[in-house]
Amino acid sequence: MDLKEYLETNALQVDRLINRYFGSASGELGKASAHLLLAGGKRLRPALLLLSADAVRKGSSIDVMPAALALELTHSFTLIHDDIMDADAVRRGVPTVHTLWDEPTAILAGDVLFASAFEFIALADAPDSAKVRAVSMLARTCVEICEGQHMDISFESRDDVLEGEYLKMVEKKTGVLYAAAAGIGAILAGGNPAYADALYNFGRGIGMAFQIQDDIIDLVAPAEVSGKDRASDLREGKKTIISIKALEKGFDLSEYRRELANAEIDAVIGKLEELGVMGEVRDLAREVISTGKKRIGILPESEEKQLLLDIADHFLARSF
Amino acid sequence: MDLKEYLETNALQVDRLINRYFGSASGELGKASAHLLLAGGKRLRPALLLLSADAVRKGSSIDVMPAALALELTHSFTLIHDDIMDADAVRRGVPTVHTLWDEPTAILAGDVLFASAFEFIALADAPDSAKVRAVSMLARTCVEICEGQHMDISFESRDDVLEGEYLKMVEKKTGVLYAAAAGIGAILAGGNPAYADALYNFGRGIGMAFQIQDDIIDLVAPAEVSGKDRASDLREGKKTIISIKALEKGFDLSEYRRELANAEIDAVIGKLEELGVMGEVRDLAREVISTGKKRIGILPESEEKQLLLDIADHFLARSF
Repeated sequence: MDLKEYLETNALQVDRLINRYFGSASGELGKASAHLLLAGGKRLRPALLLLSADAVRKGSSIDVMPAALALELTHSFTLIHDDIMDADAVRRGVPTVHTLWDEPTAILAGDVLFASAFEFIALADAPDSAKVRAVSMLARTCVEICEGQHMDISFESRDDVLEGEYLKMVEKKTGVLYAAAAGIGAILAGGNPAYADALYNFGRGIGMAFQIQDDIIDLVAPAEVSGKDRASDLREGKKTIISIKALEKGFDLSEYRRELANAEIDAVIGKLEELGVMGEVRDLAREVISTGKKRIGILPESEEKQLLLDIADHFLARSF
Repeated sequence: MDLKEYLETNALQVDRLINRYFGSASGELGKASAHLLLAGGKRLRPALLLLSADAVRKGSSIDVMPAALALELTHSFTLIHDDIMDADAVRRGVPTVHTLWDEPTAILAGDVLFASAFEFIALADAPDSAKVRAVSMLARTCVEICEGQHMDISFESRDDVLEGEYLKMVEKKTGVLYAAAAGIGAILAGGNPAYADALYNFGRGIGMAFQIQDDIIDLVAPAEVSGKDRASDLREGKKTIISIKALEKGFDLSEYRRELANAEIDAVIGKLEELGVMGEVRDLAREVISTGKKRIGILPESEEKQLLLDIADHFLARSF
């Protein structure tokens, strides 16, 4: 199957499940919790979980779909809380939860999705021992995501962030949730531990590359395409792999920590291309993806394994 | 054993575990997560979990202590997030997390404790099937706590809150976590389902009475005794069972939604006593406790059952 087709079919299935459980949410808190989930999304973490399960299952018919939903809920929870912290007004083309409602409701909406994620893991049709391992993995992952987000915020007030620190932050903030998606899929489907480890590491690598690509997209893509404020990283003085590499070459992006016109953003991009920064960042993403793909070399050949490799390539090529 | 002695011994054990896992937390996020946990606390939810486990176990030596810690972490998570929403500056006699650090760090610190709670449930030495049920119960409980907190906040802007709505809010905001403590203890220790249900309902009842008593304490107890701002409910215009019953008698407490001197608070209390409001609130708490105690009538007699009944009485008699 073609990746695009697979992702579209998968997203429809996830959307259907989201609609079933969150489509008719009542009360303001229920609606606030459902808001971002119902605004769409690429459903990449569920896809990774389902493909990982299918790549390692041996004839078992275990239904890991509730766990796939759990990963999307976890992702949505982190976005709602992050948007409060970053004071972002738009996400997935719609106003953020704390903007439409208020901050207390947004904090609680995130908490509700977080708790629901664990409920759905417990609902998966898998052996209890596997579910307990999945709960542990998801819980540990969430601690790491918080650590990553805290690093990210603390970087804003520093001008000496090293590339290694940035990569550690990206690993925690974005890599580990993709890792958990792949790992939990393999664990619940009864895959052998070596495969589950390989998939965990694969997920971490492509997740990191996803974030590096996200840094590029935030700067380059028009708001109509990304569904987010354009160049919000630049405006907020976020340390990104781009700003770190630019500073190494003497170009200090912190000067652009203010409201910016599109023409100014375009000029910044031009200078970054000229300095070779954009090229280096693209090379780094390519390298991380390539290492990730090698991790799942040990998996038996299958259509699902090929789709996983295709997802990895897609993370590099995507423009939103 | 005497209840006071039991609770003190238990609190020391919980403190020791907290110290082991959170005492040497490094990094600002680690310290912020540990801050409120290390500020002490009565450790009532862990006590309820441990006593419930001991009241139903039949010779099993299952160690439910990690789950007891999980309940304390969950409680602490809700306090950190609530303090942000309510803009409270002091808790357990120390500055709140968002005051000492900042709001983003406090949101993340709460999230870290929330995730850690599930990690510790998964660590309990109990059959996997029991752990999966415990995870489900804790997750559902957290959703309900958020709903309760949201009701509580939404009540602030309403002047027509009914007693029934208030009691539903209290059930969700406070009752269900005590319910989960007792229920999870029973489930992990392998107690039969009828006992686990009975303990769940017992916990819910005494938890509700705890909150009603809390409303009284907030108003009556000096800050040095409660460790919180005195009469913060009054100042913030919170709907409490006291304000609802007062309004029924034509005494509108919303007039006191402002900075208040101790003498003014004392005058309010005098008038509430005179109107019979305080007496009715105390009667209600007594009734809820009595119903809760009846729930565990089916449990076999044991020292632990007696301590559970003593805790229920203690919830009525406590002054902080």
